[in-house]
Amino acid sequence: MILDKVYRPGDRLPSVRDLSRQSGVSITTVLDAYRLLEDSGLIHPRPQSGYYVHAYANSKPAEPMRSTPATSPASFTRDEMLQSMTHEIDRPGLIELAFANPNPDLLPLAKLARLISTVAKEHPEASYGYGPPSGHRAIREQIAQRSFSAGAVISPDEVVITMGCQEAMCLALRAVCKPGGVVAVESPCHYGVLQAIHLAGLRSLEIVTRTREGICLIALEEALADQEKQGAPVEACMVSPNFQNPLGSCMSDDDKRQLIAIALKHNVVLIEDDVYGDLGFEGNRPRVLRAFEGGEETLVCSSFSKTIAPGYRVGWVVAGKWHSHIERLKHSFTISAPSLPQLVIAELLTNGGYDQYLRRARKAYCSNVGRMSEAIARYFPPETRVTRPSGGYMLWVQLPEHVDSVELYARALAQNIFISPGLLFSAGEGYRNFIRLTAGRWSPEIEAAIARLGRMVQQMS
Amino acid sequence: MILDKVYRPGDRLPSVRDLSRQSGVSITTVLDAYRLLEDSGLIHPRPQSGYYVHAYANSKPAEPMRSTPATSPASFTRDEMLQSMTHEIDRPGLIELAFANPNPDLLPLAKLARLISTVAKEHPEASYGYGPPSGHRAIREQIAQRSFSAGAVISPDEVVITMGCQEAMCLALRAVCKPGGVVAVESPCHYGVLQAIHLAGLRSLEIVTRTREGICLIALEEALADQEKQGAPVEACMVSPNFQNPLGSCMSDDDKRQLIAIALKHNVVLIEDDVYGDLGFEGNRPRVLRAFEGGEETLVCSSFSKTIAPGYRVGWVVAGKWHSHIERLKHSFTISAPSLPQLVIAELLTNGGYDQYLRRARKAYCSNVGRMSEAIARYFPPETRVTRPSGGYMLWVQLPEHVDSVELYARALAQNIFISPGLLFSAGEGYRNFIRLTAGRWSPEIEAAIARLGRMVQQMS
Repeated sequence: MILDKVYRPGDRLPSVRDLSRQSGVSITTVLDAYRLLEDSGLIHPRPQSGYYVHAYANSKPAEPMRSTPATSPASFTRDEMLQSMTHEIDRPGLIELAFANPNPDLLPLAKLARLISTVAKEHPEASYGYGPPSGHRAIREQIAQRSFSAGAVISPDEVVITMGCQEAMCLALRAVCKPGGVVAVESPCHYGVLQAIHLAGLRSLEIVTRTREGICLIALEEALADQEKQGAPVEACMVSPNFQNPLGSCMSDDDKRQLIAIALKHNVVLIEDDVYGDLGFEGNRPRVLRAFEGGEETLVCSSFSKTIAPGYRVGWVVAGKWHSHIERLKHSFTISAPSLPQLVIAELLTNGGYDQYLRRARKAYCSNVGRMSEAIARYFPPETRVTRPSGGYMLWVQLPEHVDSVELYARALAQNIFISPGLLFSAGEGYRNFIRLTAGRWSPEIEAAIARLGRMVQQMS
Repeated sequence: MILDKVYRPGDRLPSVRDLSRQSGVSITTVLDAYRLLEDSGLIHPRPQSGYYVHAYANSKPAEPMRSTPATSPASFTRDEMLQSMTHEIDRPGLIELAFANPNPDLLPLAKLARLISTVAKEHPEASYGYGPPSGHRAIREQIAQRSFSAGAVISPDEVVITMGCQEAMCLALRAVCKPGGVVAVESPCHYGVLQAIHLAGLRSLEIVTRTREGICLIALEEALADQEKQGAPVEACMVSPNFQNPLGSCMSDDDKRQLIAIALKHNVVLIEDDVYGDLGFEGNRPRVLRAFEGGEETLVCSSFSKTIAPGYRVGWVVAGKWHSHIERLKHSFTISAPSLPQLVIAELLTNGGYDQYLRRARKAYCSNVGRMSEAIARYFPPETRVTRPSGGYMLWVQLPEHVDSVELYARALAQNIFISPGLLFSAGEGYRNFIRLTAGRWSPEIEAAIARLGRMVQQMS
C-alpha cells in the first residue's frame, strides 16, 4: 500500500494492536513486519506515537553528489539579485517557494494573538522602556532551559537576544574575526551566512559538503592547512550541523566531535547556526556543538523564526568568552531588541504548549517535504537529483546540467511561481543548475506549480 | 507672580479675555502687558492655546560656553562604561536620570495596548512573514505624510524602516563612508552617534558647538579644510540640527542653509539625526535639512522612540541616492524589522490622535525641563552652568571645574540616583566635569534626588 501510494509520506500506519486484531496475526508478527518495513526505509517509528511512512518511501530520485566548490576565498556578490527578489514577495497570487518562511498553518498564530493582548496590558514597560541590551530575562531563561534538550547547559546570563539569527551571526562574526579575515563555510551555504560574512568585511571559503552528512571534515582540514600555508589562516568556521539550509544535512555526533577537535587544533572558532535544530523528522533532537567536550569554545546562533514567528524577529547568540564583547556590539548596532515579541514568546514557551506545536510541525514538515520530493520525481526530467533532508523544510534540486536556474527563476516568476536560483548559495560561480525549494507547505496548488516548473525544466534541458 | 513662583514653568496664564474682565482693563492693555512679559523672556504664546510661563523664566543659571573639543579625529572608547551602565537599569527603586527614555506618562501606552490586540488579530501575516526588508507600506506612508510638517517632500518608497534610529545611523554611515574615514560631529555628541561611527570603522572629528544654536559653521569649515590639507578629508557630517542631544540646541534656517552649502562645497555628506524634531517647546516644528535647497543630498535618520514607544524599536532612514544600497545592507544585517510594532504605530498615526499626544508631550517636557533647571539652580553650587534647551528633554550640566563626574556617577548610583557622566559624550577626554540629566519627568522624588545630587557636588567641589 505504501508503494501504491495509498499510504503517503508522513501518514501514520495502523497501530500494532489494531493491525494484529484486523489481520488475525500475533503482535510479535506485526512488529516483525514493521521492522522489515523500517529496515527497507519505508517507515519509521516515533516514540509513544506509532509508525509513520518515511518521507522518501515512494520517491527515490537520486541525490546530488557532494559539492565541489572553488578552493579560494571569495566575497558574496548576489546582494542585488536578492534585493530584487525581496521586491516580489507582495505579488498577488504568488506561489512562494523561494524564501525560507515556515508554513503559517504550523505556527501558533492564534495563541500568539491572544498572548499579545494580555502581555501588552500587563507589561506597559515593554513599550516605554528600551529594555536590557541582552534581552528580557524571561526569554533568556526559556532559551537556557530549552537548550538542555540540545545537550547544552547554558545560563540565562550567557544569552544575548538579537534581531533574528541574522543579527546573531553578524555580531558573532564581528566579535570573533578581524576585517579581511577568512571564514570557512559549507557549500552550498545559506545566502544569509554569506551576506553576514561579506558585511563584516570577511571572505567566505567554501568547503565540500556531503549531501546528508554535512561538511566534509577531510576537505575542511585540508583547506585549513592550505590557508595556513598561504599565510591567511581561517579565523572562523560557520557551520549548521543540524539540518543545514539548503541541504537538510545533519552531522553525526562523531563528526561533531571531530569537527571540534579540528577547530581546536587549527585555532579556528566554530560559529554554529542551529536555526533548524528543533525541526528534525525523526528521533531525538540533535545536539549542538556546545554539548560536546571542547564545545564551550563554540558560539551558537539561533532564532524562533522557523518555529514560532519570523515576523517577531527574535533570535539569540550564546557566545562564551565573547559574550561581553557581543553585548557591547549589540548596543552599538540596535541598542536592544523590541520587548513585546520577547515577552510573548517567553510566555508561549512557559505555558503555551510549544512542544505540542513542535511535534505537529515536525510531522507535517516530514510529510510535506516527502510529497514535494515525490512530485519532483514525477514532473521533472529523470536526470534531476533531489536531497533527502532529515529535518527543516528545504529541498535542494540539481537540474540537468545545461539548465540555467536564473533563467528558470525568471520564467517561473512570469507564471507567479517563486523559487531561489542556486547561485545565491555560493560566493563563487557554482550551482547555476540548482534551485532551492521551500517545501514546508503542500497543496494541490503547489503540486500544480511543481508540475509547471517541471515542464519548464523539460523545455530548457 | 512668575518671579514669586506662583506661576511655574509650563503653566498657562489666564486668557487675555479673562484677565481683561478680572482686572478691569482693556484687552489691548492686557495684550501689551503680555507682550512685555514675552519680551523679557518670562512667557511665550502658543497658537490657539494662550500664553505660557517660559521654561527658564525663574531659573537663570548661566549656560555652558560653546565647546572646545580636540581638533583631531578619535575613536569612541567608552563602550565598557556604557555597558556597565546598562546593567544597572533594573535596580529596584532607581531614579533614572541617565538614559534618554521618554516620560512614560506622556506616551500613548493604553492606546497602544488596545491597538496591538486588534492589529494582532487582523494581521496574522505580521507574525508568519518576515515582512518587506524596507518595512510595511502603511508605516512608510505615514512617515512620508508626517515629514511634510518638517518641510520635506518624501515618497513612501524612499523610507527604509530600521531598528530605531541607531540602526538607521549605522546603515547610513556604512553606505556613505569608506572604512577608516572621518566623520565630523557636534561636540558634545550623543554617545549613540559615536558608537555607530566606531562600529562602522570610522573616526569622529568633534566640532565646536554653540550651546543654543548648534554646530559652529566657522569651526566646521576650518576643520573640513584642515582635514583636506592633511589628506584625510571628512566624508560625512552627522548632525542633529533640531534639539540636539545632549545640548537641546536648534539651528536657525539660515544656519541650516549655510551648513548645506558648506557640505556641498567640501563634498561632505550630511547625515541628520532628527529624533527629537517633534519635541520643540515653542513655535513651529523646525525643518529638516531635506527641506532646504540642496538638502535632497542629505540623509535623515529618526525614530518613534522618543514620541511613541522606545520598546517598539521603530526607526527609519530616508537616504536619497543611497536608498537602494541601504536597503541591501538592512537585509544583510537584520533581514527586516518586526512587523507588528510597525503596523501598530501606523494605525496610531492614522487614527489614534497622535498629534494631540504630541502637543501634550511638548508642553509637559517644556515644563519639566524648566523645573529641573530651576532645581539645579537651587541645589547645585553657584558656579554650575545649565543649558536652556528649546526642545527634547535633556539638560547638559557643567559642574565646578574640579568635580569628576565619573566619581559623582558612582556616588549617586550608591544612592540609587542614575546619571550620565559627561565623558560619554565625546570620543576624546573632554567633559569630565559635565553630566547629562534626563529631565522628561518631574516629581517630589526627582526634586529630592536633584537636591541630593546637589549636595554631593557641593561636597566634591
